[in-house]
Amino acid sequence: MYKQISSPQNKEIKYLHQLQEKSRLRRKEAVFLVEGVRETGLAIKGGFKLKKIFFCEELFSVEKLKELISDLNEKPEITVLSSEVYEKLAYRGSTEGVLALFESKELNLNSLKFKSEAPLLLIAEAPEKPGNIGALLRTADAAGLDGVIIANPKTDLFNPNIIRSSVGCVFTTPIATGSTEEIIEFLKRKKIKIYCAALQASKQYTKVDYTGASAIVVGTEATGLEDSWLENSEENIIIPMGGEIDSMNVSVAAGILIFEAKRQRALQH
Amino acid sequence: MYKQISSPQNKEIKYLHQLQEKSRLRRKEAVFLVEGVRETGLAIKGGFKLKKIFFCEELFSVEKLKELISDLNEKPEITVLSSEVYEKLAYRGSTEGVLALFESKELNLNSLKFKSEAPLLLIAEAPEKPGNIGALLRTADAAGLDGVIIANPKTDLFNPNIIRSSVGCVFTTPIATGSTEEIIEFLKRKKIKIYCAALQASKQYTKVDYTGASAIVVGTEATGLEDSWLENSEENIIIPMGGEIDSMNVSVAAGILIFEAKRQRALQH
Repeated sequence: MYKQISSPQNKEIKYLHQLQEKSRLRRKEAVFLVEGVRETGLAIKGGFKLKKIFFCEELFSVEKLKELISDLNEKPEITVLSSEVYEKLAYRGSTEGVLALFESKELNLNSLKFKSEAPLLLIAEAPEKPGNIGALLRTADAAGLDGVIIANPKTDLFNPNIIRSSVGCVFTTPIATGSTEEIIEFLKRKKIKIYCAALQASKQYTKVDYTGASAIVVGTEATGLEDSWLENSEENIIIPMGGEIDSMNVSVAAGILIFEAKRQRALQH
Repeated sequence: MYKQISSPQNKEIKYLHQLQEKSRLRRKEAVFLVEGVRETGLAIKGGFKLKKIFFCEELFSVEKLKELISDLNEKPEITVLSSEVYEKLAYRGSTEGVLALFESKELNLNSLKFKSEAPLLLIAEAPEKPGNIGALLRTADAAGLDGVIIANPKTDLFNPNIIRSSVGCVFTTPIATGSTEEIIEFLKRKKIKIYCAALQASKQYTKVDYTGASAIVVGTEATGLEDSWLENSEENIIIPMGGEIDSMNVSVAAGILIFEAKRQRALQH
């Protein structure tokens, strides 16, 4: 009744495997693969177009699959994978049983729509580790941020490691990418103030007012932020450090800054 | 002049390699291996006894080695490793050039000495990922916490992945481990109030006063905290979530809670 694939040598399976491995192929084809029920559900809810869905009958039932795609007007192609084929593609091996092929979106700055009059944004410059990007996106979701912007990304955001470490939050928060220059121009045009996490000439982060339209900008752990960020900063902010090392995980630092902004905003109501 | 090892098959090298792999061996022998200059320096500064030090002449000089151990009264045995041997043991391959064998400490609750009258502690119950433990320890160092207590640890804290991901902060903050029961008894005895990050019956984390002796307790992302924590909690606290998923990385959540406590304490001065 459904299309079946039981050979790991099948051409489509090889293609899907390459999509997981190769950022360039994902970009060229404008598609990406998602693993897992929750992640697939969040991508659907986030408005990504589901093209094909694959499931392994030993792990996931047709009923659940139908439920997962019940809200879609345009039904995707459904394919049944043998356990062997599924395990070749799935990171989490014999769990879940669902893989989904989605169409990418262009992550343009101008496609960001803010729900709030005074948006609160997180900007991360060239974050390196997928695990850190995932944690940043989970924080962004938890804080209900208006958007996350990745400056000069080192990978596309539909990298399977980012999808996985964000537990699908890459689909729940409005995201854009751009060069530092483009993003600064965008923020100025939108009258969003820039607050850079920096070490030089910085004010304690709790002494700055984030209740207006604000973008909190964090750099890499190794090299910090590009100069043009600091030059266009409303205020440089610092988390006072009291230890031996003066170094915090970038996603922890971003979480502390964002939730200080949230705390201040909650006091207003 | 120094002892030399150039064969990866050498018995001592095999032993060091096993120490990296096996928690049980580290515990039995009460030693652990550290990689890297900064990490070794922090372990020395943290009062751990350096037994042996190994270096690769292609990567690290005798002068720098002597400087690294200059403060020690009791000099360790020094061994020169060939590149091949060094690379077998080193995670970061051809960087750094230093490995050091230290004596473990017992991480007893009763050996925790607090520098402050109203100590601020972080307690993590059974954290699973070395990366998360590392990030927690970096946050603890940055916040200058009085101590970190790991309840029911799943691994020993001298696991090389924890040392690495904490960038050596496992040596800079007073640490102890214990069972949930032991830790609760200890906190009660020391009159330290327990604030559990929880989902049920919780107050917003910004509405609780952490200026007295406080322990902030976080559970695992998967299962949260054991009931006995919640039963002995002064107040359960929650970070309000505004997203689709209601899940934050545990080290990010801990960072937000700790720095809220720090913010409140700074206001007092």
